[in-house]
Amino acid sequence: MRNVTKDNITDVFKSYMAADMPPRTRELLEGLVEHMHDFAREKNLTHEEWRQGIAFLEGCAAIETEDRHEFVLASDVLGLSSLVDMLHSDPASTSSSVLGPFHVSGAPPLAVGGDMKHDFGGPILLAEGVIRDTDGNPIPNAEIDIWQTAPNGLYASQDDDQDTFSFHGVMKVGADGRYAFTTAKPAEYTVPSDGPVGAILNACGRHPWRPSHLHYIVKAEGFRTLVTEVFPEDDPYLDQDTVFGVRDDLVMRYVEKRADEFPDGMALSGKVQERFLHVNFDVTLAQD
Amino acid sequence: MRNVTKDNITDVFKSYMAADMPPRTRELLEGLVEHMHDFAREKNLTHEEWRQGIAFLEGCAAIETEDRHEFVLASDVLGLSSLVDMLHSDPASTSSSVLGPFHVSGAPPLAVGGDMKHDFGGPILLAEGVIRDTDGNPIPNAEIDIWQTAPNGLYASQDDDQDTFSFHGVMKVGADGRYAFTTAKPAEYTVPSDGPVGAILNACGRHPWRPSHLHYIVKAEGFRTLVTEVFPEDDPYLDQDTVFGVRDDLVMRYVEKRADEFPDGMALSGKVQERFLHVNFDVTLAQD
Repeated sequence: MRNVTKDNITDVFKSYMAADMPPRTRELLEGLVEHMHDFAREKNLTHEEWRQGIAFLEGCAAIETEDRHEFVLASDVLGLSSLVDMLHSDPASTSSSVLGPFHVSGAPPLAVGGDMKHDFGGPILLAEGVIRDTDGNPIPNAEIDIWQTAPNGLYASQDDDQDTFSFHGVMKVGADGRYAFTTAKPAEYTVPSDGPVGAILNACGRHPWRPSHLHYIVKAEGFRTLVTEVFPEDDPYLDQDTVFGVRDDLVMRYVEKRADEFPDGMALSGKVQERFLHVNFDVTLAQD
Repeated sequence: MRNVTKDNITDVFKSYMAADMPPRTRELLEGLVEHMHDFAREKNLTHEEWRQGIAFLEGCAAIETEDRHEFVLASDVLGLSSLVDMLHSDPASTSSSVLGPFHVSGAPPLAVGGDMKHDFGGPILLAEGVIRDTDGNPIPNAEIDIWQTAPNGLYASQDDDQDTFSFHGVMKVGADGRYAFTTAKPAEYTVPSDGPVGAILNACGRHPWRPSHLHYIVKAEGFRTLVTEVFPEDDPYLDQDTVFGVRDDLVMRYVEKRADEFPDGMALSGKVQERFLHVNFDVTLAQD
């Protein structure tokens, strides 16, 4: 194989691999290099374009910190993160969607009917639903981990004016599988666009916006854990989520209601304004 | 496009691009994302494997410095750097090969017949040849920028015991197009293998060795600049260069000669040992 050519280099790469290497590692590296080489051959990639690609990776490296995950963001805006989600989403369950970088472990417990809005402004949103199995039966004792932005479009970890677990809570549901909480309506927001990934969005004439959403991780014994997010149908960015997170079955509808329709026993009852928003969104978990 | 699926996400990505973006940028990003998505779909890439990929990039980022170019090294050992070289190598000229990270600008002039070996040990190598056009005519006043490892396998920039321009020189040839210099025989060496790229080589059961070589950049007015390297035919790593740099026409032959065959007028004449190595390697440049 001393005479490496543009036509045999992919095979030469494969010939360098040991016979006894782990089969899945071989499969992934072979596939990765086949696609990388085909890309370069098909597009006749120039030295200058190759240098721009290296400069992109080095630019991501320069900005990467514990709080700024530019490589993950690149995967997100190129659709790879969502594609991996969809490849492993169980068709029998509610669709999964991107975890994103803002989940924090150890959020405080939130009782069924509890409140995450506290004294934040904006409309009250009452979100509720039932966690069900694929036959439609409620799953008792399921757990739902909830997080979202404040009305200013910032997550707690991005915002010095919020406590660590502001708009984060973990709810254990009862025998009826029902979750319910009051909160502030989440806001649409932009992904970080001041780095190399922002430059790519810019070059494509793309915006950095995500539609507003609630994040859920739903768990129950004997069921597959579901990482997902739900989106209001009237969000202006619903059709162009910059990280490709929207699925038909994750679109929900906020219904405006009057204060006298507010259910008893909710933590915020005493503070309900003239109008509030209500959404009913059931979640289906597939068996493990 | 609100319902993004694993089958339409590549088209959704394309639909996000502005109509007036630069056509070549569009072509490259579309090709990149098509291959990235096809790779994930074909291999059914899992979340854990995706995380390993992100960890690889973050690991490269953590080790990247001005002197350690881990992303370039990744491109090198995956064959991408050599493939880009070959795609743009002129078939009428001597083949190009990888520039590598050890070229330094501003090396001192080296006269035709000059010496780069100085007091380093090991066999003397006398390298010479003629720089020709594609009709075989010598190119007067061509310039050849030469660099290589010391006999210990280290380039000057890697080795505290060498001066900045040790084993680096730039030669202007005369009307006969002939270059000639004495040097120490270069040594085979390993690419850096203590980082994430080394872990990939390891996983593949691959070694990090490159065959020994001389680097040349050859320039002449009216001709395409050639970046290349030449390899001795008896090097143990010739058939398995870890960065895929070897081409048939870049393989040369060291011939062992006796001291009394050493040509007059070479800078090292007075120091020639009983035996020396001789190589004749002509270089062909294509017109610009």
